[in-house]
Amino acid sequence: MVEGIGASSGIAMGKAFVIPTWEWDFPEKLIDVTDLAYEFERLYDGIRHSKVEIEQIKQDFVSVIGEDQTQIFDAHLAILDDPIFMNEVQGIMQRQYKAAEVAVKEAIEKFVNMFDLLDDTYMKERALDIKDVGNRLLKHLLGALEETLPPKDEPYVLVAKELSPSQMVHLDVNHALGLVTMLGGKTSHVAIMARAMGVPYVLGVEGKLPVPIQSGDFLIIDGDAGLLYVNPPKDVIDRYKKLRENWKAMHEQLQQLAHVAAETEDGKPFQLAANISSVKELEQAIRNAASGVGLFRTEFLYMDRHNFPQEEEQFAVYKEVAERMEGKRVVIRTLDIGGDKHLDYLELPEEENPSLGYRAIRISLDRIDLFKTQLRAILRASHYGNIQIMYPMISSLDELRRANEILAEAKRELAADGIPFREKLEVGIMIELPAAVMIAELLAQEVDFFSIGTNDLVQYILAVDRMNETVAHLYDPFHPAVLRMLRMTVEGARRYGKHISVCGELAGDIRALPIWIALGVTELSMSVQSILRVKNSVLQSRYNDGDHIWSELSRCPSSQHVMDVLNRYIQVDLAEETRAAGL
Amino acid sequence: MVEGIGASSGIAMGKAFVIPTWEWDFPEKLIDVTDLAYEFERLYDGIRHSKVEIEQIKQDFVSVIGEDQTQIFDAHLAILDDPIFMNEVQGIMQRQYKAAEVAVKEAIEKFVNMFDLLDDTYMKERALDIKDVGNRLLKHLLGALEETLPPKDEPYVLVAKELSPSQMVHLDVNHALGLVTMLGGKTSHVAIMARAMGVPYVLGVEGKLPVPIQSGDFLIIDGDAGLLYVNPPKDVIDRYKKLRENWKAMHEQLQQLAHVAAETEDGKPFQLAANISSVKELEQAIRNAASGVGLFRTEFLYMDRHNFPQEEEQFAVYKEVAERMEGKRVVIRTLDIGGDKHLDYLELPEEENPSLGYRAIRISLDRIDLFKTQLRAILRASHYGNIQIMYPMISSLDELRRANEILAEAKRELAADGIPFREKLEVGIMIELPAAVMIAELLAQEVDFFSIGTNDLVQYILAVDRMNETVAHLYDPFHPAVLRMLRMTVEGARRYGKHISVCGELAGDIRALPIWIALGVTELSMSVQSILRVKNSVLQSRYNDGDHIWSELSRCPSSQHVMDVLNRYIQVDLAEETRAAGL
Repeated sequence: MVEGIGASSGIAMGKAFVIPTWEWDFPEKLIDVTDLAYEFERLYDGIRHSKVEIEQIKQDFVSVIGEDQTQIFDAHLAILDDPIFMNEVQGIMQRQYKAAEVAVKEAIEKFVNMFDLLDDTYMKERALDIKDVGNRLLKHLLGALEETLPPKDEPYVLVAKELSPSQMVHLDVNHALGLVTMLGGKTSHVAIMARAMGVPYVLGVEGKLPVPIQSGDFLIIDGDAGLLYVNPPKDVIDRYKKLRENWKAMHEQLQQLAHVAAETEDGKPFQLAANISSVKELEQAIRNAASGVGLFRTEFLYMDRHNFPQEEEQFAVYKEVAERMEGKRVVIRTLDIGGDKHLDYLELPEEENPSLGYRAIRISLDRIDLFKTQLRAILRASHYGNIQIMYPMISSLDELRRANEILAEAKRELAADGIPFREKLEVGIMIELPAAVMIAELLAQEVDFFSIGTNDLVQYILAVDRMNETVAHLYDPFHPAVLRMLRMTVEGARRYGKHISVCGELAGDIRALPIWIALGVTELSMSVQSILRVKNSVLQSRYNDGDHIWSELSRCPSSQHVMDVLNRYIQVDLAEETRAAGL
Repeated sequence: MVEGIGASSGIAMGKAFVIPTWEWDFPEKLIDVTDLAYEFERLYDGIRHSKVEIEQIKQDFVSVIGEDQTQIFDAHLAILDDPIFMNEVQGIMQRQYKAAEVAVKEAIEKFVNMFDLLDDTYMKERALDIKDVGNRLLKHLLGALEETLPPKDEPYVLVAKELSPSQMVHLDVNHALGLVTMLGGKTSHVAIMARAMGVPYVLGVEGKLPVPIQSGDFLIIDGDAGLLYVNPPKDVIDRYKKLRENWKAMHEQLQQLAHVAAETEDGKPFQLAANISSVKELEQAIRNAASGVGLFRTEFLYMDRHNFPQEEEQFAVYKEVAERMEGKRVVIRTLDIGGDKHLDYLELPEEENPSLGYRAIRISLDRIDLFKTQLRAILRASHYGNIQIMYPMISSLDELRRANEILAEAKRELAADGIPFREKLEVGIMIELPAAVMIAELLAQEVDFFSIGTNDLVQYILAVDRMNETVAHLYDPFHPAVLRMLRMTVEGARRYGKHISVCGELAGDIRALPIWIALGVTELSMSVQSILRVKNSVLQSRYNDGDHIWSELSRCPSSQHVMDVLNRYIQVDLAEETRAAGL
């Protein structure tokens, strides 16, 4: 049993599929000079086989973890063609009469050490590539067994060093029972997506495994406790089977709530909307009776491809979402790339601090062509449902006005061409910079709604990168400074009668519900997985406690005090209860 | 004439010393097989000479731009010993019968292309190293001239691709007339240091030069306009000579102000203190009659060495500063590393966003050994002058209290050993995170003073990395959100009668003086170069305008409006006036 970090709730049990790495140990074999030709033959043979195999894996992986991964394999293929590496191998064979596998091993070590000496993460990763390819070659030279390819018809638990958001988009939820990664952060986009897809996920187990996980190992992932079991004994399996049944029962119980109105005990209705990244997630949003889509992250439309999606393509997606939500509110956030989200085909500058850099609306206002294409697609789709537009990362009135000018231009163009769109489509902004909070009452006068993006907002208030494990313990959404900024934002919106909702991770966190009640915020948008859990808490809460809660919260000098107050108002979490009963 | 970015005011005229790069063009010479031995001889000879030369330059550079640079040369020496690179060169000679210089050139190109293909800044820089060394080798093979070494007795304008803060610490102001770098940012620490040292600095000229600057070229640097002239005609030289005289006259005029009390026209005294990074800068702070040291950046004590400075060593430096300031206030900020400031001997995690990462007090509270050593040294020095302690990057009461506990422990230890220190030494914090602003009135109850670090604060409020050229235009200290946060901070401090000062770049910016008057902040700490310029403005300002200015500023919806208001209150800047008269 290994303690990692639970990044997505739930239990997964099944066989591991590991993106393979190897370690070898064999004697240093010398060869006779007359064997040299034969050894070279073996070497070339091994290279040939390795290439075929890499090509094959590349094909298999495309469907499993997306095209991004295939670039790694292209790099691997290139290493097998690299004359410097191969010269080194041949040189060792020719000059020192060493067998092909010994030469390959020595060459790998030499290059890896050389790159390691540079004491740089990037170079160390390049070293890993060489090691990976070299090891594959060794496998062929030593006649070792084929590694297991990802099973096509059998579900598996995917084990990898790291996963990227675009790999996640391609993950087949019907096959991937759960995820384990050595690295990664709980608030990374991959973790957010895993939660959205309902795939249990444990990360951060690097260096904690006594032996590496092998494909075929039986794994249990406990995404709530952050535990990973490798080939556990029967009693553990039985315990988790029991717990999984309890979970199932709880989910069924929660599912009953889908058709119950989301309102507090004292009758205050809440809007519990869904954050989605793809049409795929819409299904579940509808099943969980989401009040709408509070955040449609359009960047995933732009990822994992080779060029920008054109207007027609975007239009089709937005229209589908609008239609399927049948008149419910659908808030489409314009492109939010940069930071930790990159496009293969858009070169962004290398940045020392990407989160404080060129991203989101900053890019859109620079690349008006891209921005207008997206706005046109959204506008056209607005004819088919209740679509609203939301700009990310707004820091000033200037930026808001410039974005609105481009929107007005897009409207004029469509009108001139007689293309229908919703003239009165509402326009809002993400409140995710301290600057936006401080001028909330100025911004409120020029928008229809605010949506608070707590993830980034907390990050900037505290100057803590939520993806950075070293400082993750300082990422504290319950810090009194955060509460005060939330309050300022709400006051700003309310002063001009504007809608306000919350769409960051905190919206789906049951511990935060008393905060929303205290602030009088009744529109929350969250991961589809959280909707019914939060609804269950809403049903047991009292809206009229709000003023009292705030008067307590506003006096808290630390997040410890905040949590003490919240704990008195947090409603029982069915999930926690189930867990406690099961283990 | 090239337009760059003016990063440090003033005019420099003199010969360039360029950290050299080369470009070659020569025919592809084939050799006879019988010449191979001779060619190899030439190659080894060239390598030997190159090594001697690199060693020599390494020695020369240590005194000019610091030890950091020597690491680059160690890397260069290693390349000349690298078997992969050298095998490649020899292989081309042996197999293709190419002359040594042709083989070297081809090997360089091959490696550089290979690294470039990886499409990564870091690798491109490694490629540059290989190019650099290869070119030096080529120079010897082709018998080209020695490059000019930095002149030892003659002043020069230093031209480099980039400079690091620790290189700057070693820059001899008596020899370096000015600085030009291809890259860099106006608000980088190097730029701050150049301003502090009064060395004119123009940066960001990469790609703007029709031909590269050569050592020996005559340069004019106009640090105010951000202009760089390479071998300008006589009339330009004359014009700048005239301007330099005017500058000199202005500086003399300003120097007269050193002994004038810093108070507004209507009699409100101001404290204009100095930000310093080393004892070296103290001299000038005293000459410019600084009211004290408002910010002593101790990290520079830790830089450019191989281990942590011990208590005695730190004590000696702090004591010297305390004594030389003769009872004036000396605010020592505890170690602020991380972010863009690194120590060679302290391994910090690789971070995606170092500015949102592991830095300053976060490191100190983790590394109590280091922290307490520094606190003990400061405490001991406090016996010899009016020393105060300031913690950087405080985000919560928790952090403040934990730091104070360690301070209390250090005091107990010293008391037990009978070592004298100032028992009532004041303790303050930097206000540089939005979180600290929002809980200012909580923090004020537990400190003696606040010092607002505008550089980081603005960066976090706006989510703009001030070093990042792509978004630098969004770094806007006059944003209304910034003014509001400044106001909250001041109100927090004042409510509990605590001192408040400003020590960010904005404190020395004459345009911001009306803001300080509006907020009633009369303690400013700035680069020593700015003290007299700001004093000149203070003398012409009216403190009683404050309320009126604030009532105008508080209504501004944008930084454009803020600037419009400020412009009506900004006093004539002698420097600007001088410039206008001179050109």
